[in-house]
Amino acid sequence: MALARVHNFSISLDGFGTGEPQSLESPFGHAGERLHEWMFATRYWDDDGQSGMDAVYASRHDVGFGAEIMGANKFGPPGWQDDPDWRGWWGDDPPFHTPTYVLTHRPRPSVEMEGGTTFHFLDASPADALATAMEAAGGLDVRLGGGASMIRDFVRAGLVDHMHVVQVPIVLGRGVRLWDGLDALEERFDIEAVSSPSGVTHLTMTRKHAP
Amino acid sequence: MALARVHNFSISLDGFGTGEPQSLESPFGHAGERLHEWMFATRYWDDDGQSGMDAVYASRHDVGFGAEIMGANKFGPPGWQDDPDWRGWWGDDPPFHTPTYVLTHRPRPSVEMEGGTTFHFLDASPADALATAMEAAGGLDVRLGGGASMIRDFVRAGLVDHMHVVQVPIVLGRGVRLWDGLDALEERFDIEAVSSPSGVTHLTMTRKHAP
Repeated sequence: MALARVHNFSISLDGFGTGEPQSLESPFGHAGERLHEWMFATRYWDDDGQSGMDAVYASRHDVGFGAEIMGANKFGPPGWQDDPDWRGWWGDDPPFHTPTYVLTHRPRPSVEMEGGTTFHFLDASPADALATAMEAAGGLDVRLGGGASMIRDFVRAGLVDHMHVVQVPIVLGRGVRLWDGLDALEERFDIEAVSSPSGVTHLTMTRKHAP
Repeated sequence: MALARVHNFSISLDGFGTGEPQSLESPFGHAGERLHEWMFATRYWDDDGQSGMDAVYASRHDVGFGAEIMGANKFGPPGWQDDPDWRGWWGDDPPFHTPTYVLTHRPRPSVEMEGGTTFHFLDASPADALATAMEAAGGLDVRLGGGASMIRDFVRAGLVDHMHVVQVPIVLGRGVRLWDGLDALEERFDIEAVSSPSGVTHLTMTRKHAP
């Protein structure tokens, strides 16, 4: 059965998936690149990077997916909907290589990029978006790409099977929190914590199934 | 040099050191005992408990201290100040065995308990309370006993040398947060994360010293 999975979603110790304010120059606000340095240091990101635990976790981001769904705030800085030429942060060949659904209340025509990524724009509920992406994924899994508020919405709707969250040892103090509204998550997910020699802690949430 | 140290302070994944509402029947509110089960399972708490990593960390709570300071919310349930007979949660022989300073805006006469614990009641700033406790500790360290808001006050005042926080894989959603107002803690502390086979993650913050 195909799954809906979150990978490489980084948060601070105090649970923020991004700092603020987010902008074209600072996609993660005052967090800068600090939430993702653990990943940049791996071979997943950089040919000269390390191949240890962080690289193993990071590489799962690319395995077994037939589609991605992302929130509007991942696709561009605030106001990207007003720029008809905005095609995401990732250049001509985005790292998705599948149909990629951008949730927005202002849909626009699909955009075919290089490398197999096609951006589709959906004004849909989490359940409807997932059904659409699952059909496009052709039996493979669907990546839930973030940001924090999008992941929260999908968890609350009971649509997430597997969630990999990376806790980085910094305290941001402000931004968008992952945990808000996810009370008692442990009743619905088995939660495993594994600290890495790099200093981050990999949290893996696996949906519990009825016995 | 004597240090001010926090030990065995448990928080949820979303950073709450207690649930709510706190009461005589439920000192940690809706969190119940879940924040501390990791400790109850160790030999530190229970003669039949386990002796692994969690026990090693937990036992540090009792080593090298000459005094404790705690916040009013640790000493009793809301309103304990109105009960002249309230002597804490811990029975006749509290587990402190040293002078123990309770911060409160309504001080009362000191109370000598069994086993070496004497409760003193102080209406003082964090710095003044620490100076008083350091003097009483006679060259040993001072334990900062919590709760969350008391620890935050001491961190913000630059008075904490060493802080052991135990992150438990539950999401509480409400209560008192440890991290609020501690932005950029990583600039002042080296932060080490070590996950335990029990499922909790031990965070050790060590104050950075000027080179």
